[in-house]
Amino acid sequence: MIAPHADALVEHVRANRARYLDELRAWIAIPSISAQPAHAGDVRRSAEHAVARMRAAGLTDAEVLETGGHPVAYGAWLGAPGAPTILIYGHHDVQPDDPIALWTSPPFDAQVRDGKLYGRGAVDDKGQCLMHLAAIEAHLRVNGKLPLNVKVVIEGEEEVSSAHFESFLAREKERLACDCVVVSDTAVFAEDVPSLTTSLRGLVGWEITVHGPATDLHSGYYGGIVKNPLEALAQMLAALKDAHGRVVVPGFYDGVRELSPAERAEIAALPFDPAKEAAALGVPELSGESVRLPLERMWMRPTLEINGMYGGYQGDGSKTIIPSYAKAKLTSRLVPHQDPHAVRHAVTTFLKRVAPKGVTVEIEEHGDVRAVETSRDHPAVAAAARAMELGFGKPPVFIGTGGTIGPVSSFDRILHLPQVLIGVGLPDDAIHAPNERFDLGQFYGGIETMTYLYDELAKALR
Amino acid sequence: MIAPHADALVEHVRANRARYLDELRAWIAIPSISAQPAHAGDVRRSAEHAVARMRAAGLTDAEVLETGGHPVAYGAWLGAPGAPTILIYGHHDVQPDDPIALWTSPPFDAQVRDGKLYGRGAVDDKGQCLMHLAAIEAHLRVNGKLPLNVKVVIEGEEEVSSAHFESFLAREKERLACDCVVVSDTAVFAEDVPSLTTSLRGLVGWEITVHGPATDLHSGYYGGIVKNPLEALAQMLAALKDAHGRVVVPGFYDGVRELSPAERAEIAALPFDPAKEAAALGVPELSGESVRLPLERMWMRPTLEINGMYGGYQGDGSKTIIPSYAKAKLTSRLVPHQDPHAVRHAVTTFLKRVAPKGVTVEIEEHGDVRAVETSRDHPAVAAAARAMELGFGKPPVFIGTGGTIGPVSSFDRILHLPQVLIGVGLPDDAIHAPNERFDLGQFYGGIETMTYLYDELAKALR
Repeated sequence: MIAPHADALVEHVRANRARYLDELRAWIAIPSISAQPAHAGDVRRSAEHAVARMRAAGLTDAEVLETGGHPVAYGAWLGAPGAPTILIYGHHDVQPDDPIALWTSPPFDAQVRDGKLYGRGAVDDKGQCLMHLAAIEAHLRVNGKLPLNVKVVIEGEEEVSSAHFESFLAREKERLACDCVVVSDTAVFAEDVPSLTTSLRGLVGWEITVHGPATDLHSGYYGGIVKNPLEALAQMLAALKDAHGRVVVPGFYDGVRELSPAERAEIAALPFDPAKEAAALGVPELSGESVRLPLERMWMRPTLEINGMYGGYQGDGSKTIIPSYAKAKLTSRLVPHQDPHAVRHAVTTFLKRVAPKGVTVEIEEHGDVRAVETSRDHPAVAAAARAMELGFGKPPVFIGTGGTIGPVSSFDRILHLPQVLIGVGLPDDAIHAPNERFDLGQFYGGIETMTYLYDELAKALR
Repeated sequence: MIAPHADALVEHVRANRARYLDELRAWIAIPSISAQPAHAGDVRRSAEHAVARMRAAGLTDAEVLETGGHPVAYGAWLGAPGAPTILIYGHHDVQPDDPIALWTSPPFDAQVRDGKLYGRGAVDDKGQCLMHLAAIEAHLRVNGKLPLNVKVVIEGEEEVSSAHFESFLAREKERLACDCVVVSDTAVFAEDVPSLTTSLRGLVGWEITVHGPATDLHSGYYGGIVKNPLEALAQMLAALKDAHGRVVVPGFYDGVRELSPAERAEIAALPFDPAKEAAALGVPELSGESVRLPLERMWMRPTLEINGMYGGYQGDGSKTIIPSYAKAKLTSRLVPHQDPHAVRHAVTTFLKRVAPKGVTVEIEEHGDVRAVETSRDHPAVAAAARAMELGFGKPPVFIGTGGTIGPVSSFDRILHLPQVLIGVGLPDDAIHAPNERFDLGQFYGGIETMTYLYDELAKALR
């Protein structure tokens, strides 16, 4: 199965697994939480750490690039004149670590248990970035060169909607010029099902504040004459969906296309057992739009989700107040052909319209990421499929993902570049949650896949 | 206006105002938050402090009495054989101090601004307890005796539903035997409207936990197939009331009586301006059952209020998760003739019935306080009215209060004792909220009122 000329590369990366693992642990140790201003210095340290690792891999021109927000780590090897150029994208920022109490081992002191490395950012996305740096290093150390030109962009704001990435792209257009973008920030369908992703959902969000009385009030003295902000917010949020899980906001589904019978059949053919999935997630049964297939709901239907909500007393025991305010954070995952601005506006308008009297409502909108579909017929995608077959021993299936990678949307919309979405996470890696992990089999298989990928892309894009 | 024999008493308490203020500040400095286990030691220190103050006032038999929960401070003066005996009830525990950021001065370092003392417990209820201890001390120092026998019970669990007070009452029935109970834990109708309270609402509560997935999930990967616990909870809470603010839980209003035309007229005659009240509270307009008078809604209608709710991400920026769980704390203020157990059961049953599929719901019930009505025709209430007229210069009006004092319900239901509800807080004292305060005019007027009260009750109960 292994192409003869690649033997030495595979031997090299297999011999260096322990080092790659140590390197990943060292990178995870930097708590680069982009959402929390207190960690801004850590995000910068993480970018510097990535640049140092790029230099060690043999990339030249490695440097921290400013964006106006958290910085990008950038490096390139351009020693193959006449050969194609790929741009590898990943991100070095991570999600917040709370609720911290639910982590079995400390989120930033990554530990191996049962063949998995547990730590914040292990698979999302430091580990997947490191797969590429290890594969590039292997080519340069074993062969002294790469079969194509490589540029690596490791962003620091992916987990906060890539706020400055589009302006960075526009400004650095020349430096980043390439023939194809390679993104490793996705998961395969299942452990034994190598997969390439051909659709990603977009993302917009809202932060809602319902203001009631100027201060918390005694619920006995004032109970009966003041609208409770938590009650108002609950009523507004409850109004968003009908009993079948469908969003009732006018215009919300504008542009959403129905799957073709062929697409439905393809999705239905994938191994997916709702009862098993529910048990794995710890819920009594799956939920959502009842007339749609679960995988369709996850990949090709938009969502409207409450990510957080709070107000009033949250401590031990009880405190009999009418709270002064209530807050909720909502996001919507968008599917191809939905307009982020239109969806943002539609939901904001609806929430203001259904807000009860007696309170005032403030809504901040954020996020602006369109969904993306890539073509599985593109030669680069076919090359990625061959690399994945070489790395994992079977040809990949083509899947969607319900997640969002803002820059994929930017590359698509602004640079009109072909993209390869080749990630090797597992669906149960608990990304964005306590006990995030990276299966080491996937990590090492991913490194081998990437050593093949550069050869395959060099041929396909010639 | 001042009865001649009381001149020396009034002179005494006026001369000692600065000391009373210092004493109140010292007591407030003990953060006796009964709801928070970390403050259990402080609640005990507060009881010991109260006992020391009782001894200084001249009460004998002063001691800390155990209840199985937070302790009671007890003291008595029984030097008037043949004269009536009153039991003065108050509480030394306080509400939690959060949200701490909204306090202008530290909650437990009480400070005077504009003639008001700001601190947690200033008026609820340490300051009002101290009115009695100061008045008792004045009688004993000036006259060497009181006109009746006095027992003082200062509880440590009033803010946590007086969990152990009923069993304490039952056990200490003999020690606490009396002719009448005097409670100073209420407010007057307005600053220039001395008032006696003749009805109090009851209280029951619920803590609801909605369990979703075993851990927080990535809202992209899983959005569309998992019921969001915050959404489920919002839907359940929104189902509790109709668009007119009426609770739709079957049986919720069982036993609630309609006001008579005379009662309605009396309430309507009290000075109450909804627009002014809304402005004072900082809300655009008052809310609640639209067909009822505001004061009727506050005093004689039950409530169902969300005191706190939370789930998911509450930090800076966004975190795109489906949270693992959501929680809400609810309480209901009850009115006379509602059965606390029936209301608890009705709401629990309703919430479980409307819970959406895909989540599991856990409901803890707590609280068991019936509403109370006292008779304004009782001689003790008439005596209190005379004392208040002497202390504040006008005859009091009779009012209800929307608040709850569990022990008043216990005295009523278990000991069948007449009760006088003579509190002097102001409606805008921000009890249970940041910047709780006690108007010093009310504090000092309250002390003078209590010096008269003992004389008046001695005559009335003879």
